[in-house]
Amino acid sequence: MDTPRVVIVGGGFGGLSAAKRLSQIAGVKITLVDKRNYHLFQPLLYQVAMAGLSPAEIAYPLRALLSQDSIEVLLGEVQEVNREERWVQTEANRIPYDFLILACGSTYTYFNAPEWEAVAPALKTLGQATEIRRKVFRAFEEAERTQDPKAHDQFMTFVIVGGGPTGVELAGGLGEITRYNIQRDFDHIRPQEARIILIEGGPVILPSMTPALQAEAVRELNELGVEVRVNAVVTNITKEGITAGGEFISAGTILWAAGVAQGPLNRKLNVELDRQGRVMVTKDLSLPGFPEVFVIGDQAHYKWGAQGAPLPGLAPVAMQQGRFVAKIIRARILGSRAPERFKYIDKGQMATIGRSRAVAMYKGLEFSGFTAWMAWLLVHIYYLIGFKNRVFVLFQWAWTYLTFRRGARLMIEKE
Amino acid sequence: MDTPRVVIVGGGFGGLSAAKRLSQIAGVKITLVDKRNYHLFQPLLYQVAMAGLSPAEIAYPLRALLSQDSIEVLLGEVQEVNREERWVQTEANRIPYDFLILACGSTYTYFNAPEWEAVAPALKTLGQATEIRRKVFRAFEEAERTQDPKAHDQFMTFVIVGGGPTGVELAGGLGEITRYNIQRDFDHIRPQEARIILIEGGPVILPSMTPALQAEAVRELNELGVEVRVNAVVTNITKEGITAGGEFISAGTILWAAGVAQGPLNRKLNVELDRQGRVMVTKDLSLPGFPEVFVIGDQAHYKWGAQGAPLPGLAPVAMQQGRFVAKIIRARILGSRAPERFKYIDKGQMATIGRSRAVAMYKGLEFSGFTAWMAWLLVHIYYLIGFKNRVFVLFQWAWTYLTFRRGARLMIEKE
Repeated sequence: MDTPRVVIVGGGFGGLSAAKRLSQIAGVKITLVDKRNYHLFQPLLYQVAMAGLSPAEIAYPLRALLSQDSIEVLLGEVQEVNREERWVQTEANRIPYDFLILACGSTYTYFNAPEWEAVAPALKTLGQATEIRRKVFRAFEEAERTQDPKAHDQFMTFVIVGGGPTGVELAGGLGEITRYNIQRDFDHIRPQEARIILIEGGPVILPSMTPALQAEAVRELNELGVEVRVNAVVTNITKEGITAGGEFISAGTILWAAGVAQGPLNRKLNVELDRQGRVMVTKDLSLPGFPEVFVIGDQAHYKWGAQGAPLPGLAPVAMQQGRFVAKIIRARILGSRAPERFKYIDKGQMATIGRSRAVAMYKGLEFSGFTAWMAWLLVHIYYLIGFKNRVFVLFQWAWTYLTFRRGARLMIEKE
Repeated sequence: MDTPRVVIVGGGFGGLSAAKRLSQIAGVKITLVDKRNYHLFQPLLYQVAMAGLSPAEIAYPLRALLSQDSIEVLLGEVQEVNREERWVQTEANRIPYDFLILACGSTYTYFNAPEWEAVAPALKTLGQATEIRRKVFRAFEEAERTQDPKAHDQFMTFVIVGGGPTGVELAGGLGEITRYNIQRDFDHIRPQEARIILIEGGPVILPSMTPALQAEAVRELNELGVEVRVNAVVTNITKEGITAGGEFISAGTILWAAGVAQGPLNRKLNVELDRQGRVMVTKDLSLPGFPEVFVIGDQAHYKWGAQGAPLPGLAPVAMQQGRFVAKIIRARILGSRAPERFKYIDKGQMATIGRSRAVAMYKGLEFSGFTAWMAWLLVHIYYLIGFKNRVFVLFQWAWTYLTFRRGARLMIEKE
């Protein structure tokens, strides 16, 4: 064939890993398409929402990341994939491919109640993170200046919906802020008395962890003043508060960390999807009948392990899949033997709860408290893209740790 | 009297200086009201717009700044001042005072064409700075992905309206970015060929500087590829471009750095205003007939010098006035002799153009190039509020200087 053209859709962990690996093959034209101009280090997004970090510390321009490699970067959102003629269409460009890697990630859903979004923002983008930050700090300001005790109590109540890692991190972050960062900043309110409630519809929080670590996480959250409610299904959210498990809670701030879903592209692909809308992929992560089209990361449903459950939406999964797909494409181009089946190397799981508080599991071992927190810190800083960002974030954290001050608690006005 | 109550409206350079000084007097109740929850280091705002710095690096939470002092901070926008009954009214609170300091700063105007704002954003708030950043980097992405040569030329043309320090800094910043930061990031465009045009309606740029420094600024701007047009009055701005000095320029990005104005409060005060809407104050910065009401900083018109021109809207003016007013209030409370007339100590003026490029004047001396730039750097870092921010900004700049990389060039989505 002529110069093979590889198109990668999405500059997250999966797409970036694939791009970096593919750029090592000579004579391949690689185009990376993303609707944003930056790679986002999603695992630390909650830190932006909780005013611990600034957006630029966890996001890096794709062009800067890939400027040394012979990779074309195009801003655009893919709206159509034509597998017969082999091209993708964005709002501005039609891009032909010989190999296609879809790595679009996931989004969130409010199930059948999209109207909840206006009251309870989700945490998936940098814009949403700064919106949550504004909402949280605004609540304290409103509580401070109101003369109505009922309004005071409402503004001082924070509800987080969803007991996965993001929900736990947001709840823990709020516990930290109210107990250790702003407790002396106000004249009329006592932030350390804020009610923080973590609500989970299922029977446990952090369902992918072991029961011992789940219990430990609850204990550490309680220490930070967070109340954990399980088996509490949300039935209504309004400006006044939230109804969960049949009980109404008056709350000024409600944050949404539940309901993973897929963007609109998957439905248009006309392939088998799972209940969450993820694409069912073959054992080499390609689409059935289309060996040149791959789907990786959060967007794919890939069965793994004894129970045949899908791999979770974690950065290590996406990165390993990106490199695997690059290897297959390389083999096909060079005519060598391609690996047949993607094998996941378990990198463990962790969730942070607060300063010196975290839970982690790795190869059957379990950690909690300071050890887990240190491990979490080192792993995240190590993987943070870009040398400068690593140094900045490390410095920022050391500063916050030593002084208990959060510098980024700005409510930047919406324009 | 009972415990004297001082209300300060505005947490900028003037209000903050007054608050800090007043908090040293025992037995005074001080309330600082601001519509934002942070102090903004305005002189570096253009750096946020030009992706050199992050918002949190030039803004600091007011509560954190004042947490050691016995100062009440209230979020709110003052909508009414009742000088007879001595209170101010925000959207949420009525706050009585014995002494009032108005330090609300200035805003911008599009003269008689408010519709220009939608196309040509101004630079006054952090939200606007990130909006400008998004717009600038979006233009390069659009130029990169378009197949239409006319659209390419339009997206590659940037016009800055207003030849004051802000306009010069924006134009110089754009010159820097296109020539030294992103010139190798694209496949289809050459950012270093971007047209950058600085438009000024009057006969010179930087009108408050000397002719020699004005000429030097033009020279340094030209070196960065910026075209300077004077005597070019803007008569129209549309999505397609701008008409100035009778000529139409097709431009994808137009930035507004002209037209200083005042917020709506001044008109409600029922006092004498100058043409820009500033409050005419007496020689001790109080309102005629109301010795307990002071107006300082950008909001005030205070005649000074041989020509009796008003003091310019600079941080040193606001800071000196804040401290002067605090001194008067202290004397009144303690019954000692108050100073009669505000005297301004000239701190000079400077404008930065780019890396190693600036112009400055101080006590009759003139500087340009690297010397002026170093002076500018040191002065700005020295005055930057908060120890951590100083270190961060210094590090950020050293990084950008050494590597020619700008980390903060994110286009964060609007929600």
